Amino acid sequence: MASMPTDTQSTTSELLSHYVSVRRFSQLLCEPLEIEDFVVQSMPDASPIRWHLAHTTWFFETFVLRPFAPNYQPIEPLYEYLFNSYYNGVGQQFPRAKRGLLTRPSVADIYLYRQTVDNQIQRLISQADDPLLQEITPLVELGLQHEQQHQELMLTDLKHVFAQNPLYPIYQEVPRIEPPLVPEQTWHRFEGGVVEIGHAGESFAYDNETPRHEALIHPFEIAGRLVTNVEMLEFMEDGGYHRPELWLSLGWNQLQTGDWSSPLYWVHEEDGWYEFTLGGLVPLSMAAPVTHISYFEADAFARWKECRLPTEFEWELASQSVPIEGNFVSSHHFHPASAQTSDGLRQMFGDTWQWTASPYAPYPGYRPAEGAIGEYNGKFMCNQYVLRGGSCATSRSHIRRTYRNFFPPEARWQFTGIRLAR
Amino acid sequence: MASMPTDTQSTTSELLSHYVSVRRFSQLLCEPLEIEDFVVQSMPDASPIRWHLAHTTWFFETFVLRPFAPNYQPIEPLYEYLFNSYYNGVGQQFPRAKRGLLTRPSVADIYLYRQTVDNQIQRLISQADDPLLQEITPLVELGLQHEQQHQELMLTDLKHVFAQNPLYPIYQEVPRIEPPLVPEQTWHRFEGGVVEIGHAGESFAYDNETPRHEALIHPFEIAGRLVTNVEMLEFMEDGGYHRPELWLSLGWNQLQTGDWSSPLYWVHEEDGWYEFTLGGLVPLSMAAPVTHISYFEADAFARWKECRLPTEFEWELASQSVPIEGNFVSSHHFHPASAQTSDGLRQMFGDTWQWTASPYAPYPGYRPAEGAIGEYNGKFMCNQYVLRGGSCATSRSHIRRTYRNFFPPEARWQFTGIRLAR
Amino acid sequence: MASMPTDTQSTTSELLSHYVSVRRFSQLLCEPLEIEDFVVQSMPDASPIRWHLAHTTWFFETFVLRPFAPNYQPIEPLYEYLFNSYYNGVGQQFPRAKRGLLTRPSVADIYLYRQTVDNQIQRLISQADDPLLQEITPLVELGLQHEQQHQELMLTDLKHVFAQNPLYPIYQEVPRIEPPLVPEQTWHRFEGGVVEIGHAGESFAYDNETPRHEALIHPFEIAGRLVTNVEMLEFMEDGGYHRPELWLSLGWNQLQTGDWSSPLYWVHEEDGWYEFTLGGLVPLSMAAPVTHISYFEADAFARWKECRLPTEFEWELASQSVPIEGNFVSSHHFHPASAQTSDGLRQMFGDTWQWTASPYAPYPGYRPAEGAIGEYNGKFMCNQYVLRGGSCATSRSHIRRTYRNFFPPEARWQFTGIRLAR
Amino acid sequence: MASMPTDTQSTTSELLSHYVSVRRFSQLLCEPLEIEDFVVQSMPDASPIRWHLAHTTWFFETFVLRPFAPNYQPIEPLYEYLFNSYYNGVGQQFPRAKRGLLTRPSVADIYLYRQTVDNQIQRLISQADDPLLQEITPLVELGLQHEQQHQELMLTDLKHVFAQNPLYPIYQEVPRIEPPLVPEQTWHRFEGGVVEIGHAGESFAYDNETPRHEALIHPFEIAGRLVTNVEMLEFMEDGGYHRPELWLSLGWNQLQTGDWSSPLYWVHEEDGWYEFTLGGLVPLSMAAPVTHISYFEADAFARWKECRLPTEFEWELASQSVPIEGNFVSSHHFHPASAQTSDGLRQMFGDTWQWTASPYAPYPGYRPAEGAIGEYNGKFMCNQYVLRGGSCATSRSHIRRTYRNFFPPEARWQFTGIRLAR
Repeated sequence: MASMPTDTQSTTSELLSHYVSVRRFSQLLCEPLEIEDFVVQSMPDASPIRWHLAHTTWFFETFVLRPFAPNYQPIEPLYEYLFNSYYNGVGQQFPRAKRGLLTRPSVADIYLYRQTVDNQIQRLISQADDPLLQEITPLVELGLQHEQQHQELMLTDLKHVFAQNPLYPIYQEVPRIEPPLVPEQTWHRFEGGVVEIGHAGESFAYDNETPRHEALIHPFEIAGRLVTNVEMLEFMEDGGYHRPELWLSLGWNQLQTGDWSSPLYWVHEEDGWYEFTLGGLVPLSMAAPVTHISYFEADAFARWKECRLPTEFEWELASQSVPIEGNFVSSHHFHPASAQTSDGLRQMFGDTWQWTASPYAPYPGYRPAEGAIGEYNGKFMCNQYVLRGGSCATSRSHIRRTYRNFFPPEARWQFTGIRLAR
Repeated sequence: MASMPTDTQSTTSELLSHYVSVRRFSQLLCEPLEIEDFVVQSMPDASPIRWHLAHTTWFFETFVLRPFAPNYQPIEPLYEYLFNSYYNGVGQQFPRAKRGLLTRPSVADIYLYRQTVDNQIQRLISQADDPLLQEITPLVELGLQHEQQHQELMLTDLKHVFAQNPLYPIYQEVPRIEPPLVPEQTWHRFEGGVVEIGHAGESFAYDNETPRHEALIHPFEIAGRLVTNVEMLEFMEDGGYHRPELWLSLGWNQLQTGDWSSPLYWVHEEDGWYEFTLGGLVPLSMAAPVTHISYFEADAFARWKECRLPTEFEWELASQSVPIEGNFVSSHHFHPASAQTSDGLRQMFGDTWQWTASPYAPYPGYRPAEGAIGEYNGKFMCNQYVLRGGSCATSRSHIRRTYRNFFPPEARWQFTGIRLAR
Repeated sequence: MASMPTDTQSTTSELLSHYVSVRRFSQLLCEPLEIEDFVVQSMPDASPIRWHLAHTTWFFETFVLRPFAPNYQPIEPLYEYLFNSYYNGVGQQFPRAKRGLLTRPSVADIYLYRQTVDNQIQRLISQADDPLLQEITPLVELGLQHEQQHQELMLTDLKHVFAQNPLYPIYQEVPRIEPPLVPEQTWHRFEGGVVEIGHAGESFAYDNETPRHEALIHPFEIAGRLVTNVEMLEFMEDGGYHRPELWLSLGWNQLQTGDWSSPLYWVHEEDGWYEFTLGGLVPLSMAAPVTHISYFEADAFARWKECRLPTEFEWELASQSVPIEGNFVSSHHFHPASAQTSDGLRQMFGDTWQWTASPYAPYPGYRPAEGAIGEYNGKFMCNQYVLRGGSCATSRSHIRRTYRNFFPPEARWQFTGIRLAR
Repeated sequence: MASMPTDTQSTTSELLSHYVSVRRFSQLLCEPLEIEDFVVQSMPDASPIRWHLAHTTWFFETFVLRPFAPNYQPIEPLYEYLFNSYYNGVGQQFPRAKRGLLTRPSVADIYLYRQTVDNQIQRLISQADDPLLQEITPLVELGLQHEQQHQELMLTDLKHVFAQNPLYPIYQEVPRIEPPLVPEQTWHRFEGGVVEIGHAGESFAYDNETPRHEALIHPFEIAGRLVTNVEMLEFMEDGGYHRPELWLSLGWNQLQTGDWSSPLYWVHEEDGWYEFTLGGLVPLSMAAPVTHISYFEADAFARWKECRLPTEFEWELASQSVPIEGNFVSSHHFHPASAQTSDGLRQMFGDTWQWTASPYAPYPGYRPAEGAIGEYNGKFMCNQYVLRGGSCATSRSHIRRTYRNFFPPEARWQFTGIRLAR
């Protein structure tokens, strides 16, 4: 949840413009789809596209329109139940694992739902006086950040659906850039000490990035680029997926029950390795960063390399030395790209989320927001690991140096990757 | 599989006309649907509508076009794998439980597949000389009977999908006929003896209806109409779902694990019982036959009534006294209707499939057809019960007195009902 | 349940003597065991030995002492709950799958329980006047037949426990009889017709063997001996476990999920096939009957041989031509032995239970007994198959030509085998 | 794993004496048991007593005798496989979840195994020259610490077995001390700062307590005693188990799937709350510390109290202010006891393990030992939480201020409890 700016700089028109552009982007992402593609839920962790489109709308309806729009009449009262994700404070939820069993409201009806809510949000913002604007701006902003998260999930959930299909559907043809030589790895030393960690200031951040606090960081070195596919192949050829001594115990169990022997979406054909991407099944690029790997694989790879994963504090400290630039969703590449050849710290942002060694835990003095909004982050602080830096499916405007993404250690369907430390 | 007529009376034009009308009816049934409705598989036993449309087409492609059409080129080679249901003799099958994870080929592509195969089947029939016609006619006929079975499944699978949705979608508005008084039950005695059972003659029948053979039937009485909803309510009010002494042991386990306390699709609202139908959620009709019940419920109800279910041989013998008439799919009612008031044997055909006490087993001397076609029936003769008579979702032209439908005793999503015997 | 003799010939002393000898035999079977061996439940279908010893005692306590012994005081009231198997009419049951989690009452306490109940049963019988004796004799007789069934289960459940252990414990050393040549198969023709089936007369039989009734049997041939291990090996070498066309659909699924590629308890070592027996792991005897196979395997083997399994009526008719003799538990061989070389019908009794093609269903006019005793047989008449003839773990005094044993088609831990028909 | 003392002060006789006393204590704990009690595994997380006795022996055989005893001949080669817990470096393991299916080797055989290994270990130590003693002492010491951990598990696993039994077996009668008034809670402030954390020095510690390193601790207050049963009742009466806003998301799921509405082993009878203890079922003591609660419950309780759990570093810092004294296993109470009335920091050691807010993670610079011994701790550093302080089932000689115990957040069968911080 947002740290609430007490003195907002967003003018009404800035807020409206931000609202329109984020909301429109969700629909832009759906343009290549057939109606059939909106319906399927390929695993309980993922959701159908139609659900994402409706749920993000539900968020504005629930947290902005219902409390603040005068005489608000919902388009369909059951949507409160159908499109609630996990907010117990709002009420019961349609069971998560059954989202893919629903065919109605149709996609057309959900677009109508979006349009109706958009109209009313825009009217509410336009007509709001200053005190109301103060109150709703952080909620609208939170809704937009929330929608950006779901835009990333739409791409990764869709990819997971398409990957079930032996026809290997193509979301969007992506020009194959001939991979350059694999750029050399470099190492970058930081001295650490007692440093400030977490979000400060008036701009938007989730509550889990706060409060800003001091942390003690020991000296460390961090790798200059992400681990590449060719390095992952070396790991595999060295028996990486068959050597229990490299793995956490839970990881080794998971590898066996899940029958893992390569990153997710890798396909071995007679003429070598391929990778399923949003551009279809393509030959594996050696120079590109490895992606769709779990924390377990990241950790095992690091152990094999006699390195380790960075802590989230180390990462945050290192990130302060580089600008927030990279291969984000706006590149329309929808896949991580190989690092540039340079001796600097590269790929800190975009390309792939970087697993850190840090379990997802509250910062000292952390307090979730009051009410249902407080369920946004805090209640998930258990059995997950922090990832940093964003990915090729993240919006540039969504990411921050203090941004803490989190997934369970077995999750592989996000654009996740590895940066080493030592 | 068909008993092969050695001297076919079907002329080419009759076969073509039958082909066109059955194939067209599948698509007619889909007219009320949204594209979203074609995609979902609500349980492993059911299949998405898009799959039914493709699989029935695959049947003609696999068993008619591939072996008999000169230089046949499939529209997409992977369809052989994607749309094979369970024919190991044809090859591997895409996993049944994952049929609902596919979004492509799209519905439009599947209609194109149907059109392409239809064109070639029609050309093949039109151009066939007599020997070829002799050979393909029983296969085409089998494919059409097969498609009629899937037409019934399309309606029941769709109903199951819609029933997952708290919005209770309506497939087609059905005029509510004000239920008459519940017609009196009547009893009809048959003396039995050694009687001929099973299909004879040249006309089409599945292989499981053969060979015709003698069976010994002891004297019995059979009920004049199906058990009604009001009788089922009496059973429930008498604690029927809470009295283990009424149930088979497996049924009692199933009742507990499935949390059964009424027939499937019954919904208790504040003002009484409702039933989800293809016409939406409607107040329960007292006079209509109870439907969507398992063998376990049919058996428990019969025990409670101090009756029993008829054997399939008793049913077949009794059926010979009445014409094949009833509430079939052509009524477009899509739901069982109450019996007429008369003292005759009523509702032997249409309305609901009637559970018999007979485990599904081969007739003495039974032999499945050679090759993959032989997988149609025989391999399912285990842990299932025979149902007789067809339902409100069956085509009149599909049913016979000797017709043996079969489902596991826990199945409830078909239009199944109860006729008593004693 | 017993058909109640209205005029019992059993004198008090005969009943007492029968009681003592059957009860003693349960404990005799336990003599080779360590205390540890009484505790384990290796799968939900099986039960710990300590449970069998207590449950058979509970049966007498519940159905004889509680209703008939004046002022009966149970040794421990909770035993009614702990040792009830599935009699809902008696009350709740401790969950079946958790029987192996209990360590108390200890084995010593259970022997004490047995002794206490035995004393009181013997006193009750001794002191009963004629009318009471009339009433309790069939119940005592039923309890003894029941205990004999559990004696067989004790051996098969124990074998299943021992088979989990890589140390291959030995229940009792059995002298290895050098296997003779495999005796030739013979075929025996019966003309059938309308014949009487089921139990008649005053002697004990379970209710599922009644009523005696007429059945129509078509002419058939039945094999002269059981199928041998060497024949099963031929089936395996011909790809029997890898050819779906030989299997029922449920059988093929089961084979895959259970990873079946040979009969249960067969172990392949470097120097060939071994079989785990109650005498330990021994080289597979080629001439001995194959055992520990499911209905699915029996059915697939028969199909491969271009034969079929006999119906239970065919078996019963054929059995009338031979005396009830064979390798029963009294041989202390605890394993099926090879057939004698002769041209007669052999091994109809003892050695292995013989799967029939008959689903377990009630005979026409069947009625279970009143009250909880009626739960003995009738409620299991669903999704099981009838087996006939007894096994090397059955007591001679327990078996009859009309005896109907029944197990689900996937069950393999009993001494089950194959006799062919055609 | 042990930090290896380079200059051991243990003389041979001290080591022998320590060895004998620890090994003897395992058997002492078993004296109240029946043979049946050694066999059962009541859940996959727990192990049978017979397995604990054998596995701890296996540890000495594998890590001391095999590498160091000249011409060592194992008593039974298969024990290496049967009694390996999770050391992939040693070889395959008998499946953990099936430990309760084995009945052999018998308990007597396992005692023989213990005796045989003990003899050889004692001979090896007695005859070792100085360099060998240097080498084996830390391994023997590790084996003894390991056995002490299993002694605690024997008590908690046995309690879990007994708790399955409606007869509520008693391990050992414990005199009921009339509970005093609930002692007042007190709060103790620490200023924190950059402090040294972890084990230092030559004495034994597990590898996960090293390396000693600096950590930054913010000022905090810690509660003077453990949370009591009466406080837990207040939480329950305030709807604690029914208010999702108090729970972590995973905890709420767990509560629902596990049907949790009180701590484990609490039993509600007509006349109030009881608790199953190793002394049987006894009325709940209001003043005693709540125990057998998961991390989820500890965390939810803390949130309800508007407090939090301490971090493991806070706990370690606070622990330095008090001596290592408390209600350990040597009290033979086998249950936590109520705190003394005082205004000091109490119950820091013994009574119950104290859940901390710290995910179990490696200390900066942590390195597991080389070889299979390195699997002792490191590979479990995922999805677990650190507990501190020992319990009423821990040996005093086993615990340290730096000791890090760890369990998954859902684990409840250990003697776990709550100390609050803020």
